[in-house]
Amino acid sequence: MLDQISSFPSASLTEGENSFPPGVAWIDGRFVSMAEARIPVLDWGFLRSDATYDVVHVWKGRFFRLDAHIERFQNSVRKLRMRLPFGTEELEHILHACVARAGLQDAYVEMICTRGHSPSFSRDPREAINRFIAFAIPFGWIADEEQRKRGLSLWIASIPRIPPASVDPTIKNYHWLDLVQGIFEAYDNEAENVVLSDGSGNVTEGPGYNIFAVEGGRIHTPEKGVLEGITRRTALELAQEIGLETLVAPLSAEKLRRAEEVFITSTAGGIMPVTKINGEAVREGTLGEVTRALQELYWAKHADPQWTTPVDYEATGR
Amino acid sequence: MLDQISSFPSASLTEGENSFPPGVAWIDGRFVSMAEARIPVLDWGFLRSDATYDVVHVWKGRFFRLDAHIERFQNSVRKLRMRLPFGTEELEHILHACVARAGLQDAYVEMICTRGHSPSFSRDPREAINRFIAFAIPFGWIADEEQRKRGLSLWIASIPRIPPASVDPTIKNYHWLDLVQGIFEAYDNEAENVVLSDGSGNVTEGPGYNIFAVEGGRIHTPEKGVLEGITRRTALELAQEIGLETLVAPLSAEKLRRAEEVFITSTAGGIMPVTKINGEAVREGTLGEVTRALQELYWAKHADPQWTTPVDYEATGR
Repeated sequence: MLDQISSFPSASLTEGENSFPPGVAWIDGRFVSMAEARIPVLDWGFLRSDATYDVVHVWKGRFFRLDAHIERFQNSVRKLRMRLPFGTEELEHILHACVARAGLQDAYVEMICTRGHSPSFSRDPREAINRFIAFAIPFGWIADEEQRKRGLSLWIASIPRIPPASVDPTIKNYHWLDLVQGIFEAYDNEAENVVLSDGSGNVTEGPGYNIFAVEGGRIHTPEKGVLEGITRRTALELAQEIGLETLVAPLSAEKLRRAEEVFITSTAGGIMPVTKINGEAVREGTLGEVTRALQELYWAKHADPQWTTPVDYEATGR
Repeated sequence: MLDQISSFPSASLTEGENSFPPGVAWIDGRFVSMAEARIPVLDWGFLRSDATYDVVHVWKGRFFRLDAHIERFQNSVRKLRMRLPFGTEELEHILHACVARAGLQDAYVEMICTRGHSPSFSRDPREAINRFIAFAIPFGWIADEEQRKRGLSLWIASIPRIPPASVDPTIKNYHWLDLVQGIFEAYDNEAENVVLSDGSGNVTEGPGYNIFAVEGGRIHTPEKGVLEGITRRTALELAQEIGLETLVAPLSAEKLRRAEEVFITSTAGGIMPVTKINGEAVREGTLGEVTRALQELYWAKHADPQWTTPVDYEATGR
């Protein structure tokens, strides 16, 4: 048999170290480059997707709503009956140190808690030693620069999002196969990104974002079966600040398609316009005024000390 | 801030290298020990659970139904629109080499394909370079020796399994948060393991296994919303071989609780008895005759050349 295999796939079929983004991760008690940031194959965070995470961003040297992200993360960890190896202060310090060591002014900062695995190799999750991981990489956008100017082309997929009865979406999780299949469905239909249905005619969320419809001076976003996004919350708060009504309730696909404006919200890009749904223009197919006003306010808030925390670039974690 | 953090969590809060089982993995073009088998944190197989896998076992130096597992794995990979870096022959050779290098006579052999990540760090799964991983570790059982003798105590959880419309369960996947929450629900109710419902009064599957009810000389297992397990298929084929009827159709929780016998099937242990459900004995609460007959036949087949392949202990993968 050996003779039949002349040579095994080499690095050309896997990733070279140089294909990793710049950035720094904290894992298993030390800081490493992104190329070195690896988790054990046997971690149930991988083999059972038994993990939760959160992502906060840094913009011009300041964390945006760090407290809100850490609070949600700690709640997610608790709901999965996991334990973090340390408290809020140490957690924050590790995040600061990842950004500082990476030398980033604009960053995407992820914190993760995995189940880990049982030292005795049992299948009992209670025996597992949970693992905390954090990393900071350059800030990335769900919509690229051109898409942010002209608006995204979105597809409402036939695939229903995993229902909340099966997996609680308020625990931020990596159960994304439905979303990934939805992305492929969008591409097959010449759209750029996707929003999944709830199986009953309503929309839920997309890969990494919440969705909003604007109608008659009111912004409307789905209530259930979605992540309670911090940027979603921010959009609702900013809307109230400028005198818009808000509605958090089931949002039908039909209503979304008829909306005056549509936008998505995500830590990876903030408030981003959608101008096409299932191949048809949203109204005139141009960036709407409400979306624009919220976008401007969103970015202006990135200098507001109430919602931001300057990165401690002296933090080293040692 | 630095002064407030006297020291960071060290190895005592994460896993020491010595807590990994013996075994050998193949990843990124080379063979490594299980302690060294790590995947990049940025692999979407982890960050999106965008991965598929299969598990075949080796018993007394022979793979059991290797062809069936590889065929299902290749189908899963195709359905997720991924590509393996090599064909069946090379794949088999890597599996043989993992077992040979690990020196195992009884092994749990897993093959995995992850989406990988995009070299340009885009969010587009089409641009990702897929990653193949394999590993062989000592054989493990879902039910321990005592449980296999007296039968498992199972809990029918209130949590519904992720429905097939959202995630196709015939693609073997790591979307297990519903199952893990179900395990905790079972523990809270003093049961040993769990089977999830379909939300409509029927049972589906448990963490890593299918379920069967025996009634009037017939074995009955759920049709939809479950992995099409190779051991499930084996149990159906063995039942036919000994003249039992088989039924693959919705199985209500009520019918399961009233069954003459109940058993589960998994590569991790074969055919294993269940003698208690939701705290009540299944009939007399003792190991049933049909279960025992199928178990005996199942293990006898492990010497049958038609269903087994001797491990090539000369295989080194080089």
